[in-house]
Amino acid sequence: MNRGLLIVISGPSGVGKGTVINEFKNRPELKLVFSVSMTTREKRPGEEEGVNYYYVTKEEFEKAQEAGELLESAEFVGNWYGTPLKEVERLRDEGKNVLLEIDVQGCRQVKKKVPDALTIFIVPPNMEELEKRIRGRRTEAEEIIQERLAKAAREMEMTNEYKYVICNDDVKLAADIISVIISRHMERNAELSE
Amino acid sequence: MNRGLLIVISGPSGVGKGTVINEFKNRPELKLVFSVSMTTREKRPGEEEGVNYYYVTKEEFEKAQEAGELLESAEFVGNWYGTPLKEVERLRDEGKNVLLEIDVQGCRQVKKKVPDALTIFIVPPNMEELEKRIRGRRTEAEEIIQERLAKAAREMEMTNEYKYVICNDDVKLAADIISVIISRHMERNAELSE
Repeated sequence: MNRGLLIVISGPSGVGKGTVINEFKNRPELKLVFSVSMTTREKRPGEEEGVNYYYVTKEEFEKAQEAGELLESAEFVGNWYGTPLKEVERLRDEGKNVLLEIDVQGCRQVKKKVPDALTIFIVPPNMEELEKRIRGRRTEAEEIIQERLAKAAREMEMTNEYKYVICNDDVKLAADIISVIISRHMERNAELSE
Repeated sequence: MNRGLLIVISGPSGVGKGTVINEFKNRPELKLVFSVSMTTREKRPGEEEGVNYYYVTKEEFEKAQEAGELLESAEFVGNWYGTPLKEVERLRDEGKNVLLEIDVQGCRQVKKKVPDALTIFIVPPNMEELEKRIRGRRTEAEEIIQERLAKAAREMEMTNEYKYVICNDDVKLAADIISVIISRHMERNAELSE
């Protein structure tokens, strides 16, 4: 069996990453799986250990980090999140393509450990559109919106660190193109291992 | 008939743009054509007016530029090159997809006049690989190589101005992915005009 791909998807907040991923994540030919992350945040009602997250203490998280057991990790509003390397390896060994939705900093960490990761960055048709989408959510304080816009602008400068950059001016089109990129990489892996 | 696309392909010198383009330019389903550029450089033996270039004087070129008849223009080792807007429009009206291989500055000019241009940037797997390829040509003086490397680094910072960025770590794969992007955009144009 061919080893699965490690696929990293990044893009500024508000670009519609989730919508695009939803559009292609269930296509059976892509054999996609999401790895379960480790987190220090508290379990919310309805969530399940090992399904939504592996819930750990700050100390356990730091121990895993120091032992090099995390592919990448990031702090987000006071909580830590990380991807267990072992789980990703296990899924890839089973021939599954593991999809990680992480930010630019996380992608940098991943590339150090997995140089052949298939890295994809989703960009908005233009920055005005992105601001409109971020503001359109109307759920956040102006301060958070400003922070997101600044982070988006910084991230857009780093698209050159990705193998593929895809414009999300049409969700279905973006999803189709990403599907093809994944399929072609699967085919190439198959050819290389023949 | 659906109007053709305007496709801009850029990428640093040495990235293998020409090889990738050669790989897909003759696929009939893509309906690709290259527009004939205007230039102030002298006609070389074997070249033909209206086939390789439209050969004009510096004055004629400047006149066309001032009259807004050029989609983009650039100076290269003392000579001017430009894309006649009218020819591009005519080809697109005939349902053909016009492909321009121009640099980042040229792409900026194009986007001002044709905001819906399909812009694609080809990147090397990494900068070390690019330097190897640029040096591998062995035909240029160190000064020119240094200049190309510096330009490549500057251009890589501007990939965020493109709708698609494709890594050329495998020519056939890059060509296939670009073919799919073009095909999907043709399909979308067809749907939109239904």
